[in-house]
Amino acid sequence: MNINPKVINKEISLIRQISIKSREYKDVINLTVGEPDLPIPCEIVEETTLYMKNNRMGYPMLGGSLEIREEIVNFYNTKYGSSYKIDEVIVTAGATEAISTTLRAILNEGDEVLIPLPFYPGYLPNIDLNGGVSVFIDTTTDELQLTVETLKKHLTPKTKALILNYPNNPSGMILSKKNLDEIMNFLRDKDIYIISDEIYSEIVFDDDFISVGKYDFLKEKIILINGFSKSHSMTGWRLGYILTSKKLKDQLIKVHQYTITAPSIVSEYGGYIALSKCSDMSSYTKEYKKRCEYVYNRLNSMGIVTLRPKGSFYIFGSLGNFNLTSSLDFALDLLENKHVAVVPGIAFGVEGYFRISCTKPVEILKTALDKIEDYMEKYRSN
Amino acid sequence: MNINPKVINKEISLIRQISIKSREYKDVINLTVGEPDLPIPCEIVEETTLYMKNNRMGYPMLGGSLEIREEIVNFYNTKYGSSYKIDEVIVTAGATEAISTTLRAILNEGDEVLIPLPFYPGYLPNIDLNGGVSVFIDTTTDELQLTVETLKKHLTPKTKALILNYPNNPSGMILSKKNLDEIMNFLRDKDIYIISDEIYSEIVFDDDFISVGKYDFLKEKIILINGFSKSHSMTGWRLGYILTSKKLKDQLIKVHQYTITAPSIVSEYGGYIALSKCSDMSSYTKEYKKRCEYVYNRLNSMGIVTLRPKGSFYIFGSLGNFNLTSSLDFALDLLENKHVAVVPGIAFGVEGYFRISCTKPVEILKTALDKIEDYMEKYRSN
Repeated sequence: MNINPKVINKEISLIRQISIKSREYKDVINLTVGEPDLPIPCEIVEETTLYMKNNRMGYPMLGGSLEIREEIVNFYNTKYGSSYKIDEVIVTAGATEAISTTLRAILNEGDEVLIPLPFYPGYLPNIDLNGGVSVFIDTTTDELQLTVETLKKHLTPKTKALILNYPNNPSGMILSKKNLDEIMNFLRDKDIYIISDEIYSEIVFDDDFISVGKYDFLKEKIILINGFSKSHSMTGWRLGYILTSKKLKDQLIKVHQYTITAPSIVSEYGGYIALSKCSDMSSYTKEYKKRCEYVYNRLNSMGIVTLRPKGSFYIFGSLGNFNLTSSLDFALDLLENKHVAVVPGIAFGVEGYFRISCTKPVEILKTALDKIEDYMEKYRSN
Repeated sequence: MNINPKVINKEISLIRQISIKSREYKDVINLTVGEPDLPIPCEIVEETTLYMKNNRMGYPMLGGSLEIREEIVNFYNTKYGSSYKIDEVIVTAGATEAISTTLRAILNEGDEVLIPLPFYPGYLPNIDLNGGVSVFIDTTTDELQLTVETLKKHLTPKTKALILNYPNNPSGMILSKKNLDEIMNFLRDKDIYIISDEIYSEIVFDDDFISVGKYDFLKEKIILINGFSKSHSMTGWRLGYILTSKKLKDQLIKVHQYTITAPSIVSEYGGYIALSKCSDMSSYTKEYKKRCEYVYNRLNSMGIVTLRPKGSFYIFGSLGNFNLTSSLDFALDLLENKHVAVVPGIAFGVEGYFRISCTKPVEILKTALDKIEDYMEKYRSN
């Protein structure tokens, strides 16, 4: 009795493999998890529990309540210069569902999806399951910047979409204004969807992040994805959203509806409070910046090259200065010898790197980095 | 710029069409909605809000917390005689996601899915989107009982799955032990998945519902779906589950994970309380039974034939005694003239019927039925 063969082929992710192995050690410092350690801010929990006690909590409105859609649109348009209306939003069960719904709705068998490397691994299974083909664009020789020139080289008549994910997981990079302008202008007359996963938009260190939503002339092609997991530490609430043209929304919402009906109305209310009362998350950004800069300085001082982080809470260190061929071997060996868990670069599509999540206080990061420094000694002689 | 053509073809459901039109009238009695009016019972809200105040609410465990999976398995095995283990459960974002995940995982292009009529319309788009073909089995000539004889007639080499939904939406029927035994025995040596949507299992009037989970010899083929929306009035929480063999679970969970990561951890906790502290919902069943029997008696007395309801909170009335060819025309005309909204049978795949949701107190159902009786007068002469 066969099932869909595309499902069978999916394997357990490398991140999870490392995470499972790390449980073998009691004193492990786990720097693999992309989950904020800072608490859910301000009045979100309090207001949501009040709401729960005083309301019926029936089926949510298809696509999201008017209140939260209004908050989302106001927030994005004000902060990022977009021009979305409340009927151009779908409130989703996290950014994951937004990605899944988007790719299911637009992909046909054989369609190619462009993904700059390094990339968040969650896209791949959703492309594969829908018969799409992932086409990777290496940016490691361009300081992790996607340029219009490299983009052009990967276009084919089958190119259906480009996925942008800035601030980037795993590198924390954002695209320069010049590069983003050039890419957007180039795509103006192309039949290519631009899927912009901006889930780390609220964690930007120098206010230089530009949302793809600002490129109004591309609105019919842009599918913008965001959520509350990283900005408001609400991972467990599973709440995100899609911003796109009304025309595309009307298609995407069908897949959304038939897949989950709606996200939890409790989570939806929490998201409404997050935007209406707790939208200034600058104190959290400041904390993540402090940690990321600390890790950045420590890594560079021990010869592990990294680019200065621009946002998110990740640092992507290059092992280029060391005689190390497999990032997975490195991560496993580091874990075994020093009980520090990091994610190998190959999990994000590139060899010779590893990712550290700065989702621990500086004191813990310091201990971990002392251990990493100690570990790197044995490669020092090379 | 094309999208997946299977998405474009989806239309707004008839139930929603009626529901939207019903908003035109201020004094409408809306009997279309499959949403419990009874409040969330016992300590679910209180305990969940306490949990929220005292816990971190990070990413839920893949597939569901050990605690809720243990409760689900104990509940099902004890009440319904199944033999599931805790690694044979996936906690889902409602039964909808369970259905979607199941069909995505098992269907290949051209696979046929058997669906007894009348049927819950939510299955169809999930079959279509995955390239499956719906094959309907009319049961209206067998008092809404699926028999092994009619089942046999619809089998082909392409038959991949049979969807059972008892207690049935829209009819409230359950399969007799004889019919279910015969069907299960017949399927013993067939390569056909049995998807049993038992979402109304807790609303059964005479304790004669048999879960498909009891047929242990078919475990490798059974995908059992249930949830908390109907039993515990938790529609807005979006929480359900899949019970199946370990082997199938290991496949289904990949689709589940890539589509939504997990349901809300808040909802998951609510579900845990629902089963651990509030599993006896007999007072609600009693209330639904009272309403359904009232409606059943009233309809029959005005010549609208219905079968005695066995479970759920729906009544499916036959217009066979009246000169009415279109159930949609009937529903629209009734709505326009009497401001009573019901769902036409054609929404569930059969002409000449309509569905009433008994999710209103008897007083309101009485007013609605008085109006329906009044309306039927004009057909009385025929």
